[in-house]
Amino acid sequence: MDQRLELLRSLAVENQTKMVLLVMDGLGGLPSESGMTELEKAITPNLDEMAAHGETGLLEIVDTGITPGSGPGHLALFGYDPLRYRIGRGILETLGVGAEVKKGEVCARGNFCTWREGDIIDDRRAGRIPTPDSAEIVKTLSESIKKVEDVDVRFYPGMEHRFAVVFSGEGLSEKVADADPQQEGRPMKWARAFDPSGEKTARIANGLIRRVREVLGDQPKASGCLLRGFSGVPDIPAMTDLYSMKAAAVASYPMYRGLARLVGMDVLEAGKTVKELFDTVLAFWDAYDYFYVHVKYTDSRGEDGDFEAKRKVIEEVDDLLPALTAMRPEVLVVTGDHSTPSVMSGHSWHPSPVLLSGSHLRPDNSPAFGERVCAHGGMGRMKGYKLMGLMLAHAERLAKFGA
Amino acid sequence: MDQRLELLRSLAVENQTKMVLLVMDGLGGLPSESGMTELEKAITPNLDEMAAHGETGLLEIVDTGITPGSGPGHLALFGYDPLRYRIGRGILETLGVGAEVKKGEVCARGNFCTWREGDIIDDRRAGRIPTPDSAEIVKTLSESIKKVEDVDVRFYPGMEHRFAVVFSGEGLSEKVADADPQQEGRPMKWARAFDPSGEKTARIANGLIRRVREVLGDQPKASGCLLRGFSGVPDIPAMTDLYSMKAAAVASYPMYRGLARLVGMDVLEAGKTVKELFDTVLAFWDAYDYFYVHVKYTDSRGEDGDFEAKRKVIEEVDDLLPALTAMRPEVLVVTGDHSTPSVMSGHSWHPSPVLLSGSHLRPDNSPAFGERVCAHGGMGRMKGYKLMGLMLAHAERLAKFGA
Repeated sequence: MDQRLELLRSLAVENQTKMVLLVMDGLGGLPSESGMTELEKAITPNLDEMAAHGETGLLEIVDTGITPGSGPGHLALFGYDPLRYRIGRGILETLGVGAEVKKGEVCARGNFCTWREGDIIDDRRAGRIPTPDSAEIVKTLSESIKKVEDVDVRFYPGMEHRFAVVFSGEGLSEKVADADPQQEGRPMKWARAFDPSGEKTARIANGLIRRVREVLGDQPKASGCLLRGFSGVPDIPAMTDLYSMKAAAVASYPMYRGLARLVGMDVLEAGKTVKELFDTVLAFWDAYDYFYVHVKYTDSRGEDGDFEAKRKVIEEVDDLLPALTAMRPEVLVVTGDHSTPSVMSGHSWHPSPVLLSGSHLRPDNSPAFGERVCAHGGMGRMKGYKLMGLMLAHAERLAKFGA
Repeated sequence: MDQRLELLRSLAVENQTKMVLLVMDGLGGLPSESGMTELEKAITPNLDEMAAHGETGLLEIVDTGITPGSGPGHLALFGYDPLRYRIGRGILETLGVGAEVKKGEVCARGNFCTWREGDIIDDRRAGRIPTPDSAEIVKTLSESIKKVEDVDVRFYPGMEHRFAVVFSGEGLSEKVADADPQQEGRPMKWARAFDPSGEKTARIANGLIRRVREVLGDQPKASGCLLRGFSGVPDIPAMTDLYSMKAAAVASYPMYRGLARLVGMDVLEAGKTVKELFDTVLAFWDAYDYFYVHVKYTDSRGEDGDFEAKRKVIEEVDDLLPALTAMRPEVLVVTGDHSTPSVMSGHSWHPSPVLLSGSHLRPDNSPAFGERVCAHGGMGRMKGYKLMGLMLAHAERLAKFGA
């Protein structure tokens, strides 16, 4: 465990206080021709009111100049240095299709592919078959293939040609190279162990691929599968243990729900809309100390390159914010897990604006919540993974360090 | 030794320049209903004048969100990363009652207790006997018990039922668990070694407890003692060696004097008032390169929750400040070892305002010395343990790094 987490764990104490982390995914932006960012342009009286009485700043989510993926971005907000605690693409995508993966299990992401006699892969994506067709195939496979040797196999459908598979049994390992020829018209490249610990898993994976080929052999497009990104559950200490608190995730998307489960949060049933998310927080208010609330659409609209739509999502959140502030949490933080400027149509390295509301603040005269205000806010510019300790401090959940 | 200290030591050069570190303990605060902090509300023309010509900033004394104890807080100001160099409660409290502890010696803090036949501890604090009575008992013990086996024993009186003991001899170790039943009405729990290196010390400690019991057996309240927090002198390189300078501590309170001695400073005889402290600096001006001056009362009044009294202490220091500035030290720094907001009546995690005066400054147009000004000061927000190097730099006591 790293020094910061050791420190927090050694100082964490229980209290009756409530903490809310409201993550607007990809919140930070860049100016459009208007000269203002999405957050600056949005009309946000409630966030501005919070800023006027709170503290603002900028979070370097991973490190200066580094564009965070969603996994590292969230880990940082939960207090883990994302350079130290790594989450592979395999496990993230597997979580992203709603799979549960437990310690000791190994998962991989799969593609259905078009497989020709002689083990030649003609199309690595099986013509991008429609999602419902793919789901139907996964159903068939789930009924036909339940085990390979002594290992249980679970399938999860994804978008189009994608699916995920979870292997559950003794002696599994993630030390396995992809079963994927990478190029089309080439012979299948079978899974191989990186080292002896991965040999059983590679054999099981190849056994599974052969079984899938047997079951699907007469299909015109999806007549086989590839498996990539073999990974187990990363060894991450649970937030609940680290911080002596009961933590709940209120998120609609499977990946964020899976991530939250990985770090030890309870994952609550939440709807899709911002209102449903906030209602879920209210419904479980008494049961938890810490709520992680995830709003996806700021990022989605940023990825679409749609400045106005992203601005509107921010305004929608602002409009509904009083439902959360009315609960008077001792600490309320609003930020993003990375920036997603609409003008870039993707994640970026720009630090994330952050707004902290609480009762032990040094107000910094922030006139509103926006990137330029945050650049001069009283919280300064800090590493993303330091935020969690600051929230605990403001919630009076950390003892003094040393006498 | 950590990288920062190695770096400073490798670059440190002697010079004729003078450095003064004025620590107003617990200086930083939070706004009262007035909307201003103690420091912002205080009328401080001299500090404001210094700020106008100097640089301000904020010190994260230990780490973001971490509330420093006085030990770690001061270590940071002296250049040591307090997460790396740890000082236990036992040694701090022993220093706090004015004991001197040398390398190889082991100290513990003691409680007088009410000890009943059958080795039952009826009252772990001996009815909180008055300090003069306790001091009298310590005197008796000092005369009766000078050695246990081949180990010399020294007693030091504390407040009420508290005292400290220092063991001096061969083969001692701090690897000893407390001799304390923790609960009352329970049988005595004797000292035990954590590992074989602590066996002799545990035996000596238990021998001492038996001797104390023999001497005090007929007392109504203080009829025995408990010993806790066995600790030796932490292994900390001396400031004088690290920074090639002669350093003096000007502090009234034993704990700060003891800490300063631990890091290799000479500890000067200083009175209790701010004026006496400053007069001491002036009296020894020619003899030292670096003066650490400790004003306790900002913290005491903050701990009392007395906003106005803390403000007045700050004003008193400001009023007397010209005595120090008149000496024209090349570097004068004013800061705290942590914040003690009156509204919280205790130490807090909020960064400490810092003010640097010198002749190689980039003035930052700070209009006054206060938390909000410091949040936008030219020094920015820095880790507490970086301050020492900055002082050395401004004193032209660090060579260039690399050719």
